[in-house]
Amino acid sequence: MNQGDEKFMRQALHLARRGLGRTSPNPAVGAVIVRRGRVIAQGYHRRAGSPHAEVNALACMKEFAEPEDTLYVTLEPCNHKGRTPPCTAAILAKGIKRVVVGMRDPNPNVKGGGCDFLAEKGVEVRTGILEAECRRLNEAYVKFVTMGRPFVVAKAALTLDGWTATSTGNSRWITGTASRRFVHKLRDRADAVMVGIGTVLADDPLLNTRLNGRKGKDPIRIILDTNLRMPYKAGVLSCSDSSMTWIAVGDDVPKTKLEHYSVEKVLFLPCPKKEGRVDLEALMNLLGKRSITSVLLEGGSTVMGAMIRERLIDKFHIFKAPKLLGGGDGVPMAGGSGVRSMEESIGLRDLEIRRFDEDVLFTGYPEYGTGHTEHD
Amino acid sequence: MNQGDEKFMRQALHLARRGLGRTSPNPAVGAVIVRRGRVIAQGYHRRAGSPHAEVNALACMKEFAEPEDTLYVTLEPCNHKGRTPPCTAAILAKGIKRVVVGMRDPNPNVKGGGCDFLAEKGVEVRTGILEAECRRLNEAYVKFVTMGRPFVVAKAALTLDGWTATSTGNSRWITGTASRRFVHKLRDRADAVMVGIGTVLADDPLLNTRLNGRKGKDPIRIILDTNLRMPYKAGVLSCSDSSMTWIAVGDDVPKTKLEHYSVEKVLFLPCPKKEGRVDLEALMNLLGKRSITSVLLEGGSTVMGAMIRERLIDKFHIFKAPKLLGGGDGVPMAGGSGVRSMEESIGLRDLEIRRFDEDVLFTGYPEYGTGHTEHD
Repeated sequence: MNQGDEKFMRQALHLARRGLGRTSPNPAVGAVIVRRGRVIAQGYHRRAGSPHAEVNALACMKEFAEPEDTLYVTLEPCNHKGRTPPCTAAILAKGIKRVVVGMRDPNPNVKGGGCDFLAEKGVEVRTGILEAECRRLNEAYVKFVTMGRPFVVAKAALTLDGWTATSTGNSRWITGTASRRFVHKLRDRADAVMVGIGTVLADDPLLNTRLNGRKGKDPIRIILDTNLRMPYKAGVLSCSDSSMTWIAVGDDVPKTKLEHYSVEKVLFLPCPKKEGRVDLEALMNLLGKRSITSVLLEGGSTVMGAMIRERLIDKFHIFKAPKLLGGGDGVPMAGGSGVRSMEESIGLRDLEIRRFDEDVLFTGYPEYGTGHTEHD
Repeated sequence: MNQGDEKFMRQALHLARRGLGRTSPNPAVGAVIVRRGRVIAQGYHRRAGSPHAEVNALACMKEFAEPEDTLYVTLEPCNHKGRTPPCTAAILAKGIKRVVVGMRDPNPNVKGGGCDFLAEKGVEVRTGILEAECRRLNEAYVKFVTMGRPFVVAKAALTLDGWTATSTGNSRWITGTASRRFVHKLRDRADAVMVGIGTVLADDPLLNTRLNGRKGKDPIRIILDTNLRMPYKAGVLSCSDSSMTWIAVGDDVPKTKLEHYSVEKVLFLPCPKKEGRVDLEALMNLLGKRSITSVLLEGGSTVMGAMIRERLIDKFHIFKAPKLLGGGDGVPMAGGSGVRSMEESIGLRDLEIRRFDEDVLFTGYPEYGTGHTEHD
């Protein structure tokens, strides 16, 4: 029984992944309906505003459910009318008598509602099957609905001796094509990609999504630019894709200065300042209010250092390429003051190590110790 | 036939490895004697001055060889009388009619001699079986006999954001116990371990070999100390192991200054200077003259940077530990001026990636491009 439940939950998880990067601000959810050990219907949530995973699966069943049919769903069914009718109603209407749930919905507006309601109506409900995987799948959603802020994934690419660029700022390319392709997949799944104005001035990147053969989704570009130094002709303003560029500026930048930029493609986010720079925590809250559930932070070192010291990064993807610059004058991954002793260093938990040709990708979640303090 | 030859050469290689780190300045060599598809005798070179691998294997055979017996040996048998009689004589005396050799001896004093002599005497000789592996096994010996200088292996341990120590010089510990244990194995196999005086002043290391449960060999400690700043009570001078400490000083350091140190444990190597520091290439030649075939370079960043720019490092072992300092003020692996563009970066060929618990070890051989120039 237990093993069977895990097996079908894994199938539901597999379906859920198809929606990743398309459902924001909703979670990615998958569902399968099983009769006598066989999947007879399945569905996943395709994008915000479209039917939920359970409803898509139920719609595949022509008749009323048989008594032993089980619905597997990666996230607790909703019990409220949002953009779509509550899923609990659809489950009851179809006569489903057993529901297996991966994880409870962490959204304070939904919490417990769906499972409790179904149980009250006589449905057998089992929760917490492959819960860790289900939670991981929607880590951005969990952060967003519980904290009101985006889940921040930092990406960096370093030489083996620890540099993201040479002393002259040259960084093309540190990693190989397989690694860079992976970064485009990360962009495809993120609501927004964020860099500092320094990176724009140094590299003039497009920050859009280029996937091999498959149409990607361009994330919103967020540029941290306290004093509005953005060139009018920057790639992030002129590229022809569908996505907007948001520029986070200090709230003291005069309005007349903003008016020189195209209103079609640029949205300014005036932010309070802290120590002369955009207050990053305030910016994250602002992004949360604008329904940005996930941000891919791509640098440069000033922003990376500040974001680490403010403990605003939730996950790291750090590439190591087998190259050496052979000196101490390159550009580091993070600028500013680091911790002063190894005991204060930030560990990465749930470390995953993957190879992309000659490069190695380290993925993990930072453990900001109590000892880590700011040294600005 | 070919497959069988590789199989038995692999066994000989396996035997040869037992001698690694004990045979210097001789190579590590293994030998097996095969009769009708079965190994009937085997041997390896245990240490300099003791019998060669072939002789040890031949000594296991009580009678004269049968016509089809084959001797497999990882390195060409010697044909000259050194500290031991020539192996070719022992092979002929035993009546061996077929010899399979991993690699020719690159030693200019030996080259080709053994194989040619055996062939002249009617022995069937086949060479170049698993040659790459045989060469790799004795990479230090090959460098030493062809260039007259030690093979230099650089070892470094960095945080994921690229630092070997915090801004205060704290580096204990970046890597975990499994990684540090591996470093002691490297010391056990090296003729000498080398650091700069900065590392001695910062960490006061012992630089000896501590292996779990097994008796290790302490390498000679070489300290680069141009202006002789070595404290009299430094760990490298006072520790009780059998090995000496060699201090490479500028040739302008007054003799009276040297006399303050214990003559029992310290050997001074006065070296010519280049740009105010010990001339590293001259030092390497001096070490070669003193029969140091391999050096494990353990830092710090000043020495590492200089050795890279002088292209004196033959192999890198770089550990990455999943920790972040989160700033730009740590101690880098290599100091000084690095290359200015990614095209000039030093790649690592024959890259090997191994995990030691949470750490990752990158091992490879530097490809100093033609574009890499010094920027001191």
